[in-house]
Amino acid sequence: MDKLYKLLDQAYEEMVSVRRYLHQYPELGFQEENTPKYIAEYHEKLGHQVRTGVGGRGVVATLRGGKPGQTVALRADFDALPIQEETDVPYKSKVDGLMHACGHDSHTATLLVLAKVLNSMKEEIEGNVVFIHQHAEEVLPGGAIAMIEDGCLDGVDVIFGQHIWSLLPVGSIEYRTGPVMAAADFFKVEIQGHGGHGSQPHRTKDSVVIGAQLVNNLQQIVSRRVDPLDSAVLSIGSFEAKNAPNVIADTAKIAGTVRTFKESTRDHMEKEIERIIKGTCIAGDVDYTFEYQRGYPAVVNPKEEMEFLVNIARTVPGVTDVVECEPHMGGEDFAYYLENVKGAFFFTGAQNPGVHAVYPHHHPKFNIDEKGMLIAAKTLGAATITYLQNNK
Amino acid sequence: MDKLYKLLDQAYEEMVSVRRYLHQYPELGFQEENTPKYIAEYHEKLGHQVRTGVGGRGVVATLRGGKPGQTVALRADFDALPIQEETDVPYKSKVDGLMHACGHDSHTATLLVLAKVLNSMKEEIEGNVVFIHQHAEEVLPGGAIAMIEDGCLDGVDVIFGQHIWSLLPVGSIEYRTGPVMAAADFFKVEIQGHGGHGSQPHRTKDSVVIGAQLVNNLQQIVSRRVDPLDSAVLSIGSFEAKNAPNVIADTAKIAGTVRTFKESTRDHMEKEIERIIKGTCIAGDVDYTFEYQRGYPAVVNPKEEMEFLVNIARTVPGVTDVVECEPHMGGEDFAYYLENVKGAFFFTGAQNPGVHAVYPHHHPKFNIDEKGMLIAAKTLGAATITYLQNNK
Amino acid sequence: MDKLYKLLDQAYEEMVSVRRYLHQYPELGFQEENTPKYIAEYHEKLGHQVRTGVGGRGVVATLRGGKPGQTVALRADFDALPIQEETDVPYKSKVDGLMHACGHDSHTATLLVLAKVLNSMKEEIEGNVVFIHQHAEEVLPGGAIAMIEDGCLDGVDVIFGQHIWSLLPVGSIEYRTGPVMAAADFFKVEIQGHGGHGSQPHRTKDSVVIGAQLVNNLQQIVSRRVDPLDSAVLSIGSFEAKNAPNVIADTAKIAGTVRTFKESTRDHMEKEIERIIKGTCIAGDVDYTFEYQRGYPAVVNPKEEMEFLVNIARTVPGVTDVVECEPHMGGEDFAYYLENVKGAFFFTGAQNPGVHAVYPHHHPKFNIDEKGMLIAAKTLGAATITYLQNNK
Amino acid sequence: MDKLYKLLDQAYEEMVSVRRYLHQYPELGFQEENTPKYIAEYHEKLGHQVRTGVGGRGVVATLRGGKPGQTVALRADFDALPIQEETDVPYKSKVDGLMHACGHDSHTATLLVLAKVLNSMKEEIEGNVVFIHQHAEEVLPGGAIAMIEDGCLDGVDVIFGQHIWSLLPVGSIEYRTGPVMAAADFFKVEIQGHGGHGSQPHRTKDSVVIGAQLVNNLQQIVSRRVDPLDSAVLSIGSFEAKNAPNVIADTAKIAGTVRTFKESTRDHMEKEIERIIKGTCIAGDVDYTFEYQRGYPAVVNPKEEMEFLVNIARTVPGVTDVVECEPHMGGEDFAYYLENVKGAFFFTGAQNPGVHAVYPHHHPKFNIDEKGMLIAAKTLGAATITYLQNNK
Repeated sequence: MDKLYKLLDQAYEEMVSVRRYLHQYPELGFQEENTPKYIAEYHEKLGHQVRTGVGGRGVVATLRGGKPGQTVALRADFDALPIQEETDVPYKSKVDGLMHACGHDSHTATLLVLAKVLNSMKEEIEGNVVFIHQHAEEVLPGGAIAMIEDGCLDGVDVIFGQHIWSLLPVGSIEYRTGPVMAAADFFKVEIQGHGGHGSQPHRTKDSVVIGAQLVNNLQQIVSRRVDPLDSAVLSIGSFEAKNAPNVIADTAKIAGTVRTFKESTRDHMEKEIERIIKGTCIAGDVDYTFEYQRGYPAVVNPKEEMEFLVNIARTVPGVTDVVECEPHMGGEDFAYYLENVKGAFFFTGAQNPGVHAVYPHHHPKFNIDEKGMLIAAKTLGAATITYLQNNK
Repeated sequence: MDKLYKLLDQAYEEMVSVRRYLHQYPELGFQEENTPKYIAEYHEKLGHQVRTGVGGRGVVATLRGGKPGQTVALRADFDALPIQEETDVPYKSKVDGLMHACGHDSHTATLLVLAKVLNSMKEEIEGNVVFIHQHAEEVLPGGAIAMIEDGCLDGVDVIFGQHIWSLLPVGSIEYRTGPVMAAADFFKVEIQGHGGHGSQPHRTKDSVVIGAQLVNNLQQIVSRRVDPLDSAVLSIGSFEAKNAPNVIADTAKIAGTVRTFKESTRDHMEKEIERIIKGTCIAGDVDYTFEYQRGYPAVVNPKEEMEFLVNIARTVPGVTDVVECEPHMGGEDFAYYLENVKGAFFFTGAQNPGVHAVYPHHHPKFNIDEKGMLIAAKTLGAATITYLQNNK
Repeated sequence: MDKLYKLLDQAYEEMVSVRRYLHQYPELGFQEENTPKYIAEYHEKLGHQVRTGVGGRGVVATLRGGKPGQTVALRADFDALPIQEETDVPYKSKVDGLMHACGHDSHTATLLVLAKVLNSMKEEIEGNVVFIHQHAEEVLPGGAIAMIEDGCLDGVDVIFGQHIWSLLPVGSIEYRTGPVMAAADFFKVEIQGHGGHGSQPHRTKDSVVIGAQLVNNLQQIVSRRVDPLDSAVLSIGSFEAKNAPNVIADTAKIAGTVRTFKESTRDHMEKEIERIIKGTCIAGDVDYTFEYQRGYPAVVNPKEEMEFLVNIARTVPGVTDVVECEPHMGGEDFAYYLENVKGAFFFTGAQNPGVHAVYPHHHPKFNIDEKGMLIAAKTLGAATITYLQNNK
Repeated sequence: MDKLYKLLDQAYEEMVSVRRYLHQYPELGFQEENTPKYIAEYHEKLGHQVRTGVGGRGVVATLRGGKPGQTVALRADFDALPIQEETDVPYKSKVDGLMHACGHDSHTATLLVLAKVLNSMKEEIEGNVVFIHQHAEEVLPGGAIAMIEDGCLDGVDVIFGQHIWSLLPVGSIEYRTGPVMAAADFFKVEIQGHGGHGSQPHRTKDSVVIGAQLVNNLQQIVSRRVDPLDSAVLSIGSFEAKNAPNVIADTAKIAGTVRTFKESTRDHMEKEIERIIKGTCIAGDVDYTFEYQRGYPAVVNPKEEMEFLVNIARTVPGVTDVVECEPHMGGEDFAYYLENVKGAFFFTGAQNPGVHAVYPHHHPKFNIDEKGMLIAAKTLGAATITYLQNNK
């Protein structure tokens, strides 16, 4: 593995410059044009077999190793966010109102340069490597699902992915066996009562009172109807019924989010929410509309592959810490890959107060210590080579 | 009218002795035997046409006046209560556990002696007087409804009734035009959840939590769904779900009462209670049983007859005060008579600290100042004679 | 009284023209300039003693009768509303965005022309008449309270007032002994929780859930804590906590109205609202602000003067109906006069589909049948003359 | 280890007969007399140093090995339950109303016979073994806490314990690193309102409505105020306010249980429950009493010792399965030992339909497959010997 590590060390400068280039030209999910073109050209120069427009705007490149074997996929997403950058870095975003504020630029740079290094070692590689460059991770329904439908996992035996993490010190890697990122769903309820004058409640159907009852009743789902050993969240972010104080509201609009780690719990939550809305509205003699929008499912790391990756990570130069973390409640469409093939997903530390890399993801001042990319590349690269060696 | 008043004054001693006799031999509603027999014999001696067993145990006697005319009915109830008397009066109840603790003995004595006096004046009476002695006012469904079905109001043009009142000073008369006594209904709900161990709520359907939600939701009926200018009460007296603290309840039993003055509000309350139970149980995914038992309807005094009676009352010797009162929330099956014929119902003061007549009705020390009977007799008698004179 | 009626009939045309003039030049409460000037000049021409700027912008004129006696006050308000008129009448408002949409123009015309007629009969009048022309009835805190402080009721023995009513047929008069218009108060609560991400409720204080609990708890005030024989309303018109569905709200803003007829109930409501807010926020570990703004108190007609006026009204030519109505839930600062002197307030019908006078008050198409003014003038005039005759 | 296993196989018959003897003479926690005497005599015969009356009724025996070393403690509890046995076994309980329905007889037999076998191998043992025979595991506050205060852990380096489990097949061992059994607490609230007649809610403070509000508000603790990644349960088992339906309740009594795995969450739950009670009662203007009784804390297995034990268990003859289980929500005072020294606690399968050992613990037909005892003895014995070898 020393050869891999050494080659990556040598390629680090290029990795940084690729990342900084991409950082200056962010593109929104489902609207990416130049980024996939850039990626495709990079792989083409390496002589990889390249497929573009996969599932819309994805790019899939394949490196065939010198020896026969299984196929490892590595995934990096490449979309940016509608955030106005507020950093002072010289490679600051050149697109007004858009920014790589979640580090997908670094994911792409990591994967491209790792591809180049693996390509230079290809005679030793005992199988194939598929580089999945995914568009639109930030925007529902995400790019993964369409890329999978479009065959990006065909022939793939295992997939590895990682997320750079600005709140985790450089040198640390975090992982979790089992559910590591929650399914994040959204719902909207509109209660249609019958408005009227505040002095005559009996001539109205008071949607504020019914809505309050609903918020109240919904608390029972987590407190009573979900296994206390399981995790679930139901939060209502918005309750809107703005009227004059002496006017009884015609409608109340309620919107919220649901987080779960198991599909069965997720299904159960949706069913119970609807049950409670229905019953509460029957009690209140009002009508309602209910929309439940599923976000990404939970990312669930299978035990064997996660442990394999953890064991690799512990041997990677520069890695000081590999710790099991609590699940994250945010969503990530890497989930879909793991529903189709085995694999592992982990977090690579990139926090460094010295370079102001201390802001959370999606923050206008978000930045990373680029050394994190190198660690990510070494871990993914070592995992790829070792996996192919072990699974002939 | 002076003649009437004089004759009643002379008969007062008999009135007292009749009342005291009845007081010693109380009988429960729907179980009266000697009381109706005593009443029937009294009227028979006067030569009145008497019908017994009316609607079960009621007695109806008719006095035909010397001149043709309309027919006035006067009603007195005669049942007692399952209360152990705790007074020291020499005519204390001789029946263990039973007591005339609501003054129905006095109602009967008043009506019997008034009948005797009117009988002695019958040549001057321009029409007929029907004396309705009603059994079972204290026990649902009450005697009135069956007596009416059995014809006690046939040929009756107007009915007057009164209730002696131990918390109103002797000399005072209270009345109210419109609703004077509320309809008093009762309901029971049993929530059938699914019990289990307190540590595993998700395997149960928690009937305590659903029941609490129900109690909570029911508050909206009075606060939101009844005209604020109308009066309605919904009170839950009983919430029973007694278990070990670590056992989730299988069932919760809830019982309460509803008070209203208008039939439409009463119907509305029942409907809304059921609507809220249904919706709450759908939300909670539990079953329920619901029973709504109607008590007596509201006693509603029509304006014209009530004002007629008030004007009479103001002229009766001994009456110092005739005041309009707030509605009473208790029930009285005189309501049914007023649903069938016009008439009026009022309260006759009988409070007197001098004779320890200061306890509320249904109290073991309940007593009255018997002078109240004389005032009631004069008011009913004067109303009868005047009404027949005025409505030839 | 025939003379009064005849003179008013003769002056009707002037009354209409005064009203139509005022209708074209509406002025908002507390901003009236030309209207009080017009009123003052009218009275000055009649030789009345006139005081302007009373309590700000009010006008008070005094007619001294030919004979000594008591003093009757008659009140008319004169402010308009910020509503764009949508009628087609030739005397439509000439001021953009302002309209006499509540009939105060007619109140003023009625009172001015009645003043002229009474002036012409002054030798026969046995006392004095004070004409109170009040500004700003539509805008809190109303003109009445300042005019009273400024002495408009000094020496006044009784006050009469009326409101034209577009939903009551011409010829009808409505009144109510006791409370006839509710006190209308307003409140605002702001719950200050601690916002955060929807996936981490335990790091927040969820102001939507606490706010829902509050709405819920407030239902108990009317359902449990107010005498069911009394009337009270608490309505929440506005519940605002607009956020992204996955963000837990920092604050929730709730606003509502309270209607009562008794000052003690009003005080009780305010105290109970605050008690429930306080307790709910302690339970939820959140802060709050609470503002309770009192509107006008209830208009309460004393029995004797109301009956006096009703008896007069029944004899007025053109009056076909004098009926007791249910209380109105709206507010009226005539309340303050009746807190200081005895008197009566009533509603004069002015509905007439023939002249499109069928829209509710405050409607852009509001109009009246002007014949209602004549009936109002006759009733107020007859009441004035008779009251002074009866109370020498 | 083969020697240990062989000796235990040979001693199995004795183990069975000890267990069956104890099974016939169950004694309640804190009332044990003959059981500790029997245990003490058994150890004394082996020449162990024995201390009786430890922490009340506990027995502690010490075996000193032939070589110096650390000290391992093994714990077995010995109290029975107030349950009438309903099995048909020949060694059925001879004490009316008492039964070893949780298998503590087997725990004791396992430990005694293991002590005998270890004693026979003592020359090879590189340290000491302390046998902790604990009274009163079933009754709060449990025997463990007093035995620890009385020194039973003095000089002990590590402790192992196990619970036989009738719902787990013979051959299976279940364990869990970290929290394996929840802390089980109990609470009682009494709401002191002010009772009265159902028709006059405004004269009362309705404790049923306030109690319902409380049940309702308490749902927020688990739904909003506990980390969704943590586990917590709050269940209300009892809500008592039994009255006539037309009587408003003076008091409502609520009782429930709380289950948690972390002390910080436990403290937080108690604090939040009290906060919500306080706020709800302030809102309702009622008084309350609140009692929170802590049961045993959570049993938390430290990672190193648990993994050590698991590795041992996997090598024990007869063990077919060693699986990590979900935490149990029940309580066990083994928790206290693990708060003082390191160690591990596990579950030994003893289910066998062939011998009717299929009923849950605390069931009148509870029984075990006694082969489970042999597996438990081998696991505890092997862990003891190995631990002392490894930790010289």
